[in-house]
Amino acid sequence: MVFDSELDRLVRAGTPLTETPPWRALAEHWERVRRLEMREAFAKDPERFRRFSVAVDGLLFDYSKNRITEETIRRLLALAEASGVKEAAAAMVSGQPINWTERRAVLHVALRNRSNRSVLVDDHDVMPAVNAVLERMRQFSTAVRDGSWRGATGLPIRTVVHIGIGGSHLGPEMITGALRPYHDGPAVRFVSNVDATDFVETVRGLSPAETLFIVASKTFTTQETMTNAATARSWLIDAVGDGSAVARHFVALSADRKAVGAFGIDPDSMFELWDWVGGRYSSWSAIGLPVAVAVGFDRFEELLEGGHAMDRHFLEAPLERNIPVLMAVLGVWYGNFFGAASHAVLPYDEYLSRLPAYLQQADMESNGKSVDRDSRRVEYQTGPILWGEPGTNGQHAFFQLIHQGTRLVPCDFIGCARSHNPIGDHHPKLMANMIAQAEALMVGRTAAEARAELGRRGLRDAEVAALLPHVVFEGNRPSNTILLDELTPRTLGMLIAAYEHKIFTQGVIWRINSFDQWGVELGKVLATRVLDEERRLLAGEDVDLSGHDSSTAGLLRAFAEKARG
Amino acid sequence: MVFDSELDRLVRAGTPLTETPPWRALAEHWERVRRLEMREAFAKDPERFRRFSVAVDGLLFDYSKNRITEETIRRLLALAEASGVKEAAAAMVSGQPINWTERRAVLHVALRNRSNRSVLVDDHDVMPAVNAVLERMRQFSTAVRDGSWRGATGLPIRTVVHIGIGGSHLGPEMITGALRPYHDGPAVRFVSNVDATDFVETVRGLSPAETLFIVASKTFTTQETMTNAATARSWLIDAVGDGSAVARHFVALSADRKAVGAFGIDPDSMFELWDWVGGRYSSWSAIGLPVAVAVGFDRFEELLEGGHAMDRHFLEAPLERNIPVLMAVLGVWYGNFFGAASHAVLPYDEYLSRLPAYLQQADMESNGKSVDRDSRRVEYQTGPILWGEPGTNGQHAFFQLIHQGTRLVPCDFIGCARSHNPIGDHHPKLMANMIAQAEALMVGRTAAEARAELGRRGLRDAEVAALLPHVVFEGNRPSNTILLDELTPRTLGMLIAAYEHKIFTQGVIWRINSFDQWGVELGKVLATRVLDEERRLLAGEDVDLSGHDSSTAGLLRAFAEKARG
Repeated sequence: MVFDSELDRLVRAGTPLTETPPWRALAEHWERVRRLEMREAFAKDPERFRRFSVAVDGLLFDYSKNRITEETIRRLLALAEASGVKEAAAAMVSGQPINWTERRAVLHVALRNRSNRSVLVDDHDVMPAVNAVLERMRQFSTAVRDGSWRGATGLPIRTVVHIGIGGSHLGPEMITGALRPYHDGPAVRFVSNVDATDFVETVRGLSPAETLFIVASKTFTTQETMTNAATARSWLIDAVGDGSAVARHFVALSADRKAVGAFGIDPDSMFELWDWVGGRYSSWSAIGLPVAVAVGFDRFEELLEGGHAMDRHFLEAPLERNIPVLMAVLGVWYGNFFGAASHAVLPYDEYLSRLPAYLQQADMESNGKSVDRDSRRVEYQTGPILWGEPGTNGQHAFFQLIHQGTRLVPCDFIGCARSHNPIGDHHPKLMANMIAQAEALMVGRTAAEARAELGRRGLRDAEVAALLPHVVFEGNRPSNTILLDELTPRTLGMLIAAYEHKIFTQGVIWRINSFDQWGVELGKVLATRVLDEERRLLAGEDVDLSGHDSSTAGLLRAFAEKARG
Repeated sequence: MVFDSELDRLVRAGTPLTETPPWRALAEHWERVRRLEMREAFAKDPERFRRFSVAVDGLLFDYSKNRITEETIRRLLALAEASGVKEAAAAMVSGQPINWTERRAVLHVALRNRSNRSVLVDDHDVMPAVNAVLERMRQFSTAVRDGSWRGATGLPIRTVVHIGIGGSHLGPEMITGALRPYHDGPAVRFVSNVDATDFVETVRGLSPAETLFIVASKTFTTQETMTNAATARSWLIDAVGDGSAVARHFVALSADRKAVGAFGIDPDSMFELWDWVGGRYSSWSAIGLPVAVAVGFDRFEELLEGGHAMDRHFLEAPLERNIPVLMAVLGVWYGNFFGAASHAVLPYDEYLSRLPAYLQQADMESNGKSVDRDSRRVEYQTGPILWGEPGTNGQHAFFQLIHQGTRLVPCDFIGCARSHNPIGDHHPKLMANMIAQAEALMVGRTAAEARAELGRRGLRDAEVAALLPHVVFEGNRPSNTILLDELTPRTLGMLIAAYEHKIFTQGVIWRINSFDQWGVELGKVLATRVLDEERRLLAGEDVDLSGHDSSTAGLLRAFAEKARG
């Protein structure tokens, strides 16, 4: 039995999870501290920042602006401990099948295992295969970068177009964007959506003879990816005029050699994926190939090293100094006790624009579950809705609601001390905004302060009275701040791995499987039927839609009628 | 008194809003229908789609997949009526100061008032000024497009870079992206973030002598915008070598002629904004200039016509056929009765990629409030967290949580019957996915269906038993579907205006001011102080940070130390 923690045993013996001692201890404690004013807590304890912050290498994690006391953290960590987080982490890295619904190991940590200690799955060391694929990635990315890999007409590759969706898209896209200052290889673009617009707009202006496609799909059956890959193949062949060109312009990231060959891609141009790497944890694998092409394999290795450094921290640091664990339990605190439904990720770095979208998948596809590890329906909230946009942009968009709305939105602010573009005073301004927003959310503005502010503007008493409540800020809104020395491959690797382990830790506490995704199945099944009906409707056939509800049938008919014009 | 509805009077006499008769009628009704299974409702009523859908011109709104009965809609509309939605809308379009905290009229409808009936603000018809600015936008955008507007060295403009943030950015950026198939003018790019990376990456590769900057800021003091504008001015002058070039390479969208002149922009190159247009409602004004440059002024006018058509619908259609009102009351139904905290916007069109970010501002900055129109704190939830990414991408990212997570997420699916890029079967696949996802969310998959599905895969009984709960879909998840004939300037205008009026209607029901944004103030004030301290720390000064909490002080010191290296 992989999961056999104190809480597992209690729950299996019939105690609801939220009635177990550590949960009850937290519920009780919450009653006492829920009105805690952080402003007062800071005033009372000048050591609060030191107490509630942790630095690892080039990453500082400040969690002092949360509605917590030392006792809160003790109780939250007691929950993590009783949940078996440490044991579950050990089970993960030792290759046990912790993705139990799919009977799979979960070994994205092996992909960045720079120690090269062996990692066994079913008594078989996976490290030689991992390292062999990494070596092939190095050779291939170097060949594309130095021009020795040639297209069918003998020209070097100017643009790499990566075709993939979900876990085969968001990671490489986000990382390539984040590492743009290191970009010294061919241009890299991404196509994901089955909407042809994505393909058309992405290849606009490209020269097929100088374009290489990377097709990323573990099964090589993903509808969107295979549709886009087929369109890409036609686009290439139409221009280059020869089907044999496919071998020089397509490589595959997949687990299915046969399907890759059937598409026309040379099986020697396939980079292998394994079933113990989930899509949303796969940027460290061959799925990261576009990153290696863009910034070079040495930089890609630095990314892996950053991930590995965070793995070591997660596995070795005591819970009270463990960044991913602290991130995780704070999320549990707000989600399960304060009733927060969402979590905002606010990177104050334009290069991290796609981090929220990336983390949306990492988090919501992992922990958007409601069946526990005993296959019973949970009776508590699990994963939050994760969202965000870069700062300072968000300040001029949705921060109004975070400051003065009726909903509690815990925030992660993420910034970098050094900018890759240190022009004028842009960067101090950017950081001043980040630091001040976190401060403002916490301290708020009292009625007395607001009154003074309005007074300074020369408002009359009646005006002050009417306006006052609108310019008061309740404050006491929690946030974490993650400050990186600089956005480098290494710190980026640390950041991503920190979120991965946060998600893992929460999954263990909520007793869900963070590594399957049954919830994506049903839509796929129904889409197959709807597509067949659409085709027949578009062809003018009389189609019996009575198997559908009237809305689905009505939308199908409306679409077909309007599409036919 | 602008707001004097039945409910206003009751609340002012002391009845909490949620205790007024229409709210109580809904609360009672909710108890009876909260377990309503849409699947059964569809089975019982073959007319449900016809009953719960409305078409206006090229826009079909299907709201039949909601947890409602006819009685629900009756009671929700009774609430809207008693809240004075109709009267408030009339007050808005007649120029009354419904933005009462700022004593301003709210007249984005005047900007698209194609009827040219007069619109009075303080007895003064604003239409002549609106039309005069539109005429200047036509002349200017035409001159830039046809090459008759020349840069300082005599070259025509190849790229327009729009500098603005928040309401001066998200609208034009989203609309320019949405109308990309119509793009036949100079390239248009956007800079918003004070992060210098935004500017650097946006102007990379551009020729200053062929670049025109549009600087958009009502006050012409917005920190981000003025910082970027100053950097842009240096970038231009460094290349072109002459400060007088500014006049040929910068235009302003502002309300402050003096500040514009002080920056060095010819006041004749200023396009006027007015204080009765809020930033997040301003794409219809001169803020839309980059759109007009990209697609031409005739297309921009079609956008205005679409907005105007939706205005007429909103003002004239009875509540039960009124799309924005129905959207609004459904949001109230989920937010205030079912406890949904968020709302997902899922455009199945890559050209609408930025629609969620745009609506995030439109909605959350408008309705993320907690003080009512009597300046009292509300005791109910107001605006939701709005989020989303384009489909089908979202399906491979966060749909897991929407299908099987513990949180209710009402969704808006938005699709187009005809694609601008009708290649192969991409578009039928895209639409099949959209229709099937909405169907899957509603119908779910019962245990019996899931068992049959697992059986087909040849699983043994023990495996089926363990896996079954994971492959069950509870269903009954609500969604609206908006189907456009095609994404054109006109249908886009209708779509935006529909959301604007939805937001307006909800604000009226929640008795909040959707048109101010006091919540953005405090962060700005604190950032000024923090910036000053940062500068001194970076200069190596000894700075007294004791006025801050230890977290703010600690982050400031960490930033300065790391930044100095």
